[in-house]
Amino acid sequence: MEMEKQMTSDDSLPDKGRPGRPRSAEAEQAILNTTLDMLAEVGIEALSIEGVAAAAGVGKTTIYRRWASKEELIVAAIRMVQVDVPFIDTGNLRDGLLALAHAAQQKNPRAAFERLLPRFLGEGATRPALFRMYLDAALVPRIEQFCSMVERAQARGEIRSDLDPMIVFSLFGGALLSGWMVLDKLSPLPPDFAEQAIDTLWRGIRTTP
Amino acid sequence: MEMEKQMTSDDSLPDKGRPGRPRSAEAEQAILNTTLDMLAEVGIEALSIEGVAAAAGVGKTTIYRRWASKEELIVAAIRMVQVDVPFIDTGNLRDGLLALAHAAQQKNPRAAFERLLPRFLGEGATRPALFRMYLDAALVPRIEQFCSMVERAQARGEIRSDLDPMIVFSLFGGALLSGWMVLDKLSPLPPDFAEQAIDTLWRGIRTTP
Repeated sequence: MEMEKQMTSDDSLPDKGRPGRPRSAEAEQAILNTTLDMLAEVGIEALSIEGVAAAAGVGKTTIYRRWASKEELIVAAIRMVQVDVPFIDTGNLRDGLLALAHAAQQKNPRAAFERLLPRFLGEGATRPALFRMYLDAALVPRIEQFCSMVERAQARGEIRSDLDPMIVFSLFGGALLSGWMVLDKLSPLPPDFAEQAIDTLWRGIRTTP
Repeated sequence: MEMEKQMTSDDSLPDKGRPGRPRSAEAEQAILNTTLDMLAEVGIEALSIEGVAAAAGVGKTTIYRRWASKEELIVAAIRMVQVDVPFIDTGNLRDGLLALAHAAQQKNPRAAFERLLPRFLGEGATRPALFRMYLDAALVPRIEQFCSMVERAQARGEIRSDLDPMIVFSLFGGALLSGWMVLDKLSPLPPDFAEQAIDTLWRGIRTTP
């Protein structure tokens, strides 16, 4: 459902069909990347079409020709975030969790989910529709993939079958996010923080004691 | 250290010593409570002395007489958050975690930590000094108390002695915060969400299998 929505709004596709407009697709990409950068840096409230235009090196009208408002621009940028959900299936949940944590920890400039989450959490109370759209685009596909990883591990008998996959997600994702977003600001986390958290979680979910 | 700082900045104490100024202490309390409410509602950037004065029903000068700037006012309000760390020691860590989760879930209007966290996370990147001050006032005393709970349980032999208490904290606090702040926005959590998360964590940390 979400993927479909993303495909139809992926503006690089229609542009490919229009001869002589490669620069337009490039400009669009640059504008949306700049929007994501500025969302992370200044937040939703302080973001302006003027600011994005200046930072992306395009005219304001280039932006207004495509998106009628700041909100529409933000929505288009948020939809781009969706593409960077890594697909990981190692055939073993413990290894899968380690690989997911490792992938999330890479300083990937496209990993906009982690960069944007604090901003959307902060402004979510006053911007509930945008917050929900962000969650649908950036988090829901990850949760779905995570839950199917957990269910496959349950089918293989690796972890207890009575576990709600969302509980496993809240412990895994919560530990990593609270560690990286908050605890690391107080004092640097040990380098094997993710491994220790996953080891502890693993003992709590595995079938064999 | 933090507690000391809080005591000396607790302005109700000096006021008690000054005859004929009870209204001043009340006004101060009202201003700081309003500041916390507005921090949660509109955030750091959008908060203004004018807005706080109007909402608290006092004149701007009443605020400026006590705090020279918006930043000073916010710092004073943040220091108030410190007082509401519940002390819980049930003599058994699993019960202690359940009691902590239950206390955090109560709709306590003074429980400003949970209300303010999203805002400070969101504006933390552009306001690192205030974010750090908020963490020191609102989170560090909780972490210290949590870690001493974990260490007492290790001394009693309830949980593994090789565990880093911060790992336990990241799993416990992370699961609850991600559940309450994010996952519950997507679809309502089961009523026993905290119990399920604590049960799973408990299996991962207890000494007996």
